[in-house]
Amino acid sequence: MTDVRDVCVLGLGLIGGSVLRAAVAGGRTAWGATVSSVDAATAVADGYSVDSVPAALRRAAERDALVVLAVPLTAVDEALHEIAAAAPRCRLTDVVSVKAPVADSVRRLLPDARYVGGHPMAGTAESGWTAGSATLFQDATWVVTTEPEFDREVWREVVGLAVDAGAQAVPASATDHDAAVARISHLPHVLAAVLASVGADGGPLALALAAGSFGDATRVAGSNPDLVRAMCEGNRAKLLAAVDDTLGRLGAARGALASTGSLRATLDAGHRARLALDAARAARRRRVTISLTSANAVRDLGELGRNGGRVVALDEADETIVHAETPA
Amino acid sequence: MTDVRDVCVLGLGLIGGSVLRAAVAGGRTAWGATVSSVDAATAVADGYSVDSVPAALRRAAERDALVVLAVPLTAVDEALHEIAAAAPRCRLTDVVSVKAPVADSVRRLLPDARYVGGHPMAGTAESGWTAGSATLFQDATWVVTTEPEFDREVWREVVGLAVDAGAQAVPASATDHDAAVARISHLPHVLAAVLASVGADGGPLALALAAGSFGDATRVAGSNPDLVRAMCEGNRAKLLAAVDDTLGRLGAARGALASTGSLRATLDAGHRARLALDAARAARRRRVTISLTSANAVRDLGELGRNGGRVVALDEADETIVHAETPA
Repeated sequence: MTDVRDVCVLGLGLIGGSVLRAAVAGGRTAWGATVSSVDAATAVADGYSVDSVPAALRRAAERDALVVLAVPLTAVDEALHEIAAAAPRCRLTDVVSVKAPVADSVRRLLPDARYVGGHPMAGTAESGWTAGSATLFQDATWVVTTEPEFDREVWREVVGLAVDAGAQAVPASATDHDAAVARISHLPHVLAAVLASVGADGGPLALALAAGSFGDATRVAGSNPDLVRAMCEGNRAKLLAAVDDTLGRLGAARGALASTGSLRATLDAGHRARLALDAARAARRRRVTISLTSANAVRDLGELGRNGGRVVALDEADETIVHAETPA
Repeated sequence: MTDVRDVCVLGLGLIGGSVLRAAVAGGRTAWGATVSSVDAATAVADGYSVDSVPAALRRAAERDALVVLAVPLTAVDEALHEIAAAAPRCRLTDVVSVKAPVADSVRRLLPDARYVGGHPMAGTAESGWTAGSATLFQDATWVVTTEPEFDREVWREVVGLAVDAGAQAVPASATDHDAAVARISHLPHVLAAVLASVGADGGPLALALAAGSFGDATRVAGSNPDLVRAMCEGNRAKLLAAVDDTLGRLGAARGALASTGSLRATLDAGHRARLALDAARAARRRRVTISLTSANAVRDLGELGRNGGRVVALDEADETIVHAETPA
């Protein structure tokens, strides 16, 4: 078994800052860099190693570290230029909320990097270093992109980073990931914004009467809108499809309410769907092992993810084996 | 100052059961009735007085009690027929989630009742007697309908019931109430159902990746869909207007994303609206007193509610005075 790999985190906001903390808490040598002087100063004050971006990347190249790109999507290309200058053949992952656009940029700007994408499904309405913690990823899912041409060694290291942080790794292709998060992350942000506006249009009386359902459903509209924009706009095609499905279903509800007065179809379907979410969360799972060197590895991992399964551990003795759980 | 009035609660589900508990906890003589043998049995087992509907209403007529109608909207007319038979001139309020349809039914079926509508803005995803509690209304808002022809004595008693239960009373006309709750309660239920369905259409991978934003925004889709239907369908006209506003805003977001790629207008407006909700909740308030016998009473109470204010106490010495708070 190889030693755990060093980690260099670019970007020390909520997610990057939490990755750095979790990596150090897990016993790794890890350091970071950020263009935010506020995040840098608070990270240093908290006892973490923070360099300039070029110095951090030179150190990553020297030690063949895993570089974790943790900048907003809109800053990815600029960061890739920096990496190309200092560590063009590095092991690279990212924690950006869309995967196909990042993969495209890596192919274009950093073709020699050994890249496997990542996306931890964790966050809060807050942002910046101070909002993060070493336990942010505990029990979260962490997508690790799994494509036909994937680099098995780096893939395994990214899964290890996720599992060591307390998360479960979900294998998915970049496009499957982007389609899924459009529905369960980006669309909820758009609907929260729309609902917040429609509610506020009701004036102070409406806001005074707003209770749990409105408060919960608009919570994420309190997030930094620039970060939400970068996330949603970066997944334009998949988000458009999800918005169109929503317009279709909401239009059907509108039509039924106006014509027959009934919302039965809409509400019953939504209730069944919510029960499906609860059932998926409570489902009994069975353990399976998957061989990374099998000819069917990509197919098996893809099926695991599409079925709602997760990789929960690397095998300690055999580095070609991962342990997973899949709904029974 | 008069003694606190007895209370007779018809319907012992989540809300009615909590009203009965809160009334008893506040020192009132209170009893209930329900057509649900399960709710009746558990309420009796918990030590509460439960009669048949006719017996409970005869007792209400004898003692000139305040009757609290706590049945689903779809059962209101049937309950009003029962009241008409046993207590046609009773003091009457209700806790149903729409106000204009109940007021119409009361005018039609129980014209001699002294009726003031009510709606406590509290609930959970659960239903039935066992889901309730004496503290359900603590710090909640409780709409008390306030119309030009309102019965000041019963209005004051309904406000007293709300305040004694730990709530704050928001005066509003039935139509203003219905327009407001369409936006902040009924629309969130419809959107939760639509979002849950669009998410589940993404399959097990999407459900596996669903985190806080999706879970929070779809929570109320777990509620009993028959109760949600009764609530939403009973507010058809106002809900249609809120759905149309939503379709308009979501359609505009769709158009902007497809054409310019930008969601700035949607997300910035939603963020401002959510901050407005937070600001309304945190607003400093000033105390005011309102005279119920003033010629301007209805106007003053209506303004209070429209401005986001609440009645917080009845005056202990002068029963023509209520104490309120309004945003400073």
